Amino acid sequence: MSGNTIGKLFTVTTFGESHGPALGCIVDGCPPGLALTEADIQQDLDRRKPGTSRHTTQRREADEVKILSGVFNGVTTGTPIGLLIENTDQRSKDYTKIAETFRPGHADYTYQHKYGIRDYRGGGRSSARETAMRVAAGSIAKKYMRELLGIEVRGYLAQLGPITIEQLDWSSIDNNPFFCPDPDKVPQLESYMDALRKEGESIGARIDVIASNVPPGLGEPIFDRLDAELAYALMSINAVKAVEIGDGFACVNSKGTQFRDEITPEGFLSNHAGGILGGISTGQVIKAGIALKPTSSLRLPGRTINQQGEATTVVTEGRHDPCVGIRATPIAEAMVALVLMDHVLRHRAQNLHVQSGLPVLR
Amino acid sequence: MSGNTIGKLFTVTTFGESHGPALGCIVDGCPPGLALTEADIQQDLDRRKPGTSRHTTQRREADEVKILSGVFNGVTTGTPIGLLIENTDQRSKDYTKIAETFRPGHADYTYQHKYGIRDYRGGGRSSARETAMRVAAGSIAKKYMRELLGIEVRGYLAQLGPITIEQLDWSSIDNNPFFCPDPDKVPQLESYMDALRKEGESIGARIDVIASNVPPGLGEPIFDRLDAELAYALMSINAVKAVEIGDGFACVNSKGTQFRDEITPEGFLSNHAGGILGGISTGQVIKAGIALKPTSSLRLPGRTINQQGEATTVVTEGRHDPCVGIRATPIAEAMVALVLMDHVLRHRAQNLHVQSGLPVLR
Amino acid sequence: MSGNTIGKLFTVTTFGESHGPALGCIVDGCPPGLALTEADIQQDLDRRKPGTSRHTTQRREADEVKILSGVFNGVTTGTPIGLLIENTDQRSKDYTKIAETFRPGHADYTYQHKYGIRDYRGGGRSSARETAMRVAAGSIAKKYMRELLGIEVRGYLAQLGPITIEQLDWSSIDNNPFFCPDPDKVPQLESYMDALRKEGESIGARIDVIASNVPPGLGEPIFDRLDAELAYALMSINAVKAVEIGDGFACVNSKGTQFRDEITPEGFLSNHAGGILGGISTGQVIKAGIALKPTSSLRLPGRTINQQGEATTVVTEGRHDPCVGIRATPIAEAMVALVLMDHVLRHRAQNLHVQSGLPVLR
Amino acid sequence: MSGNTIGKLFTVTTFGESHGPALGCIVDGCPPGLALTEADIQQDLDRRKPGTSRHTTQRREADEVKILSGVFNGVTTGTPIGLLIENTDQRSKDYTKIAETFRPGHADYTYQHKYGIRDYRGGGRSSARETAMRVAAGSIAKKYMRELLGIEVRGYLAQLGPITIEQLDWSSIDNNPFFCPDPDKVPQLESYMDALRKEGESIGARIDVIASNVPPGLGEPIFDRLDAELAYALMSINAVKAVEIGDGFACVNSKGTQFRDEITPEGFLSNHAGGILGGISTGQVIKAGIALKPTSSLRLPGRTINQQGEATTVVTEGRHDPCVGIRATPIAEAMVALVLMDHVLRHRAQNLHVQSGLPVLR
Repeated sequence: MSGNTIGKLFTVTTFGESHGPALGCIVDGCPPGLALTEADIQQDLDRRKPGTSRHTTQRREADEVKILSGVFNGVTTGTPIGLLIENTDQRSKDYTKIAETFRPGHADYTYQHKYGIRDYRGGGRSSARETAMRVAAGSIAKKYMRELLGIEVRGYLAQLGPITIEQLDWSSIDNNPFFCPDPDKVPQLESYMDALRKEGESIGARIDVIASNVPPGLGEPIFDRLDAELAYALMSINAVKAVEIGDGFACVNSKGTQFRDEITPEGFLSNHAGGILGGISTGQVIKAGIALKPTSSLRLPGRTINQQGEATTVVTEGRHDPCVGIRATPIAEAMVALVLMDHVLRHRAQNLHVQSGLPVLR
Repeated sequence: MSGNTIGKLFTVTTFGESHGPALGCIVDGCPPGLALTEADIQQDLDRRKPGTSRHTTQRREADEVKILSGVFNGVTTGTPIGLLIENTDQRSKDYTKIAETFRPGHADYTYQHKYGIRDYRGGGRSSARETAMRVAAGSIAKKYMRELLGIEVRGYLAQLGPITIEQLDWSSIDNNPFFCPDPDKVPQLESYMDALRKEGESIGARIDVIASNVPPGLGEPIFDRLDAELAYALMSINAVKAVEIGDGFACVNSKGTQFRDEITPEGFLSNHAGGILGGISTGQVIKAGIALKPTSSLRLPGRTINQQGEATTVVTEGRHDPCVGIRATPIAEAMVALVLMDHVLRHRAQNLHVQSGLPVLR
Repeated sequence: MSGNTIGKLFTVTTFGESHGPALGCIVDGCPPGLALTEADIQQDLDRRKPGTSRHTTQRREADEVKILSGVFNGVTTGTPIGLLIENTDQRSKDYTKIAETFRPGHADYTYQHKYGIRDYRGGGRSSARETAMRVAAGSIAKKYMRELLGIEVRGYLAQLGPITIEQLDWSSIDNNPFFCPDPDKVPQLESYMDALRKEGESIGARIDVIASNVPPGLGEPIFDRLDAELAYALMSINAVKAVEIGDGFACVNSKGTQFRDEITPEGFLSNHAGGILGGISTGQVIKAGIALKPTSSLRLPGRTINQQGEATTVVTEGRHDPCVGIRATPIAEAMVALVLMDHVLRHRAQNLHVQSGLPVLR
Repeated sequence: MSGNTIGKLFTVTTFGESHGPALGCIVDGCPPGLALTEADIQQDLDRRKPGTSRHTTQRREADEVKILSGVFNGVTTGTPIGLLIENTDQRSKDYTKIAETFRPGHADYTYQHKYGIRDYRGGGRSSARETAMRVAAGSIAKKYMRELLGIEVRGYLAQLGPITIEQLDWSSIDNNPFFCPDPDKVPQLESYMDALRKEGESIGARIDVIASNVPPGLGEPIFDRLDAELAYALMSINAVKAVEIGDGFACVNSKGTQFRDEITPEGFLSNHAGGILGGISTGQVIKAGIALKPTSSLRLPGRTINQQGEATTVVTEGRHDPCVGIRATPIAEAMVALVLMDHVLRHRAQNLHVQSGLPVLR
């Protein structure tokens, strides 16, 4: 199966290499009757697009999506939705120098071990370019959940290198190239990134994603717990090295009375759990945080070996994000949306007639 | 499907409530020809068993496993292996007082919302008791990988509340009730836990799991990346709120030149990546860390509501772990083992004839 | 995965060898709130049980099922349901003579090739004994569909050797050991079988299964068409060599105007299609027919080879069905029920809000 | 999930409506290192193409396939292979008259019930046009199995209406528009079809598919038996109403001694089982037969209802196959190839180290 499919009911399968003719995906299991146009999807893709600020890769991709099936007269039919994005701005010669070398910190070495062959241009299948299709598919899930259930999924930059946000102003997020919700930090981020680029270095980041108005009951213990599936989906994003839900690692040094979220008839008194208990959504805001490593595509030389096993060094020319976290927010949102959508359908399948007798508390 | 199955080729499906007649599982896809006895599995189960020290729940379960199928003349046949553990030490009356109340921090509230009905005794299906079957299944995976491939999976307590280990002595781990690899910390842990129990409180913990001698090439990008699958499996353990691979969250404030693991003909120069690059194992040691929240089963009262939505308080009598992290090590090992085993088979299926031309570097 | 799981939402995984300690299964994904007792399941199992007439194997199995999880206070909880049947009447010495020989027409040879090892006693995992668990799981599906949706699944013997039924009297089916709906044929079947047993021969049979009151809309083109899934489930029964839907093979020599089922506002004018069009149920009666081969367990000698590849002959002593078709009806019903149940949930997941604007026609 | 994916390890997901912009599929899990070009795939597609004789639909589709990913320097990389075929010869106005009517014998009525909406042009997703992608994907499987394992998959027309073949000359199959292996029957088929077309009628057909040189051991009892999976894959083809393996329905009236295939050190003495025993391949030729119903797209009027439930009649203008069986042979081959390929990988995953100690017998 080779792992290119996510979801059990709302299923997304993707294909496409960084420098191949196109990227694409098939979204299968979308309920019929959802109004859907290319513009709807394009909106989310444009948030992810490279070349829109000096802080991200200068590769200029139109990332123009086409809907090839599954939509008729502007409405989904319930049949599989084929999406396609043609690659237009590949510069394959940027990569020929490293065809025989394994860039440290990249997947070149592991792909060679696994497959014995790799499309080295632009990182081939291991390139973050494939995330465009995740965002495209995720936008369909977001639309359905927003329109039918009022569920919202939004992410933001929580930390970049040593710079941590100190306030959460939702309206600021789309007004700067960082998806930063703290307007006061933006100048600091700008100069930090400028310095980084001069240095030739890269840096890591942390993204938080919030899902609000989620109905209680989503998630399928014991293995397909909602938090387990979110961890899977988020950790599958290139460069992600950690995932936490709610208080996350802070719970290691928390006492039981501090951590547990008490309940009153008016609602929960806290949300240390991040909206998930026993692997099932409580109805509270779901909060997930991820850590993205600094990119290893640097013009500063790194020691490595070549195809013959000989010692060599490599520099990565070409156009790279000095902080992959900067463009990760739409991707993280998409992954959370895909998992929630899948579980909306799964919960509905098994538990349609359940009368819990309980109010929905937030 | 309801999410009680893990794995695609080495598949484990479990059943069983905390106070039901029995727990069980079916392991499907185990290669034939592996020597396997009940004693092999019992060994790992005994490491997880409650009631073996004053620091863990005093429920006394024999946790005696029976093999009901899939083994003939002491060897696996390739047919599904049915395992059964009978519950013997349920004290259901301990729970009757909370049949109508939702213990804060527990899954009671969410199970009621999802299913409209729940076996409240001992937490029913949401109880950590079901993890016994995970350990049982994981022991089969461990045995196969150790004997055929030399892969070892071992975990340890890395932090309990404010107490962090400072050395890693593998031989100490099984000599104390904490799976603590730092013998100097054991007295401190003992008195910390004694104080906690007097207080009636609970505390969180961090467990690290190491997999060594892993062949390069395991993992199936882009969704079934090895790290994504490990995150899924580990986050599915009760009480886990965070997962990190390698340096994890520390990479947020790491520079690219610091973080990337350079390669020489003799091997890697570092292992910030935790043994996984591009979602595929490098051959280096795989390191995963998890955070477990403090248990919410406390005799200190907590505010909550009852089935009628009225405000009330609840105390949890009965026998509970003040730190669920103490017994989590074998469970975390089992989850890592199950994922690796599944990917050993998956990689073999697709890439049997690959000649990578590369040496295995550690 | 090794193929021991059926279903995507209503999932059944089974284990157990003919002469092992027990058979069992896990039913995952059953909606909560269904009243369920061991007696409910036992009812269907008793229809399948051996040793109840002289025409079937004389092995006397109580086939007593236990529910080990997933039911609380007599109602399903939505958590996985573990079922267990202990084997009590194995006569393993009946088989020792053929431990080293491959009975022609049996799976011995292929199991040896595939696994390199086999539990030869009673055919091990390849024995039809495992079908007891299918019937057990199927009874849960039948109950849910009957009670919530009014769907009925019933099968009958349509042909045994040269004897074909000529009428369909539903009330006769459970009044004879053959599940024969034509009371006039029963004496003929009795004497045919007596002669067969004297001869030491065996014979094939055809079973038809009807599902009525099925809602339109079940099935998921293009691969998980309802008829494709029924074919899969039915062909997976031991000894089945053919499956047809509706007119089946008769359509090869049918003209288009004869075959198509015309529609009027009062309903369909015919049902050549067998209730499925384009892989989706129409609302008409679903009709599936299967062919079961004559058992190869004969006391008449057959030529074969042994483990060393040498020519030899084999006779099968022990207690065998001279016509496996006689006991197949409950199994075929169970398989149809499992597929329909799975698709009830799947259709509900994706298409809950569909307003087709059409009446349900039969 | 909506059922548009087949296979567990060699996975194919398709999309595309008859009159949409394009058809496509993603083949995931193909081993790396297989030489593959568009011409390789086109070869099989051209066998399926419409408009190549007067006996099939006159719609002229180039059916030109493009490889969008997963192949680098003419060799598969192990990453997902995206295939695309653009639709060029849609005549949507042919269908506007039936936008509001349900053609009897077609999926219009059931799609409307299931989804509440349908792309009616050319049958939308229910059109046999989607089978082009199955053939494309199947050609990759065929190539791999032929080159690495010597497995051949070939089909032929076994019966058309009342005309049955009487000899099997493999070299004739591609020399007539019918895939007929009996050259003596071709004139008869020609005149039969000419008469049919004048009449405005359609007829059914039977296709047989042979797989030779299959290694023993493929198939995963108890549910994913090889015959069960073949039945599923073949029954999923539009218009298929029946599947049989080996002697199929003829076994109903067969005696045990007649039917069982005895074994000698030189090989099997017969092949009534059709190459599969206990759901696992024996190494003998695998033979599957399918029945295809007569198409319901007729210019002879049929009674039906419209969207408002009122009685009406419908004729189908446009370009249709009077016998869909004529073009089905490549599709049936493709489905058999996909199942075998999947099981080659699955068997390898679990049973790589098996030493059966047995010779391969044919």
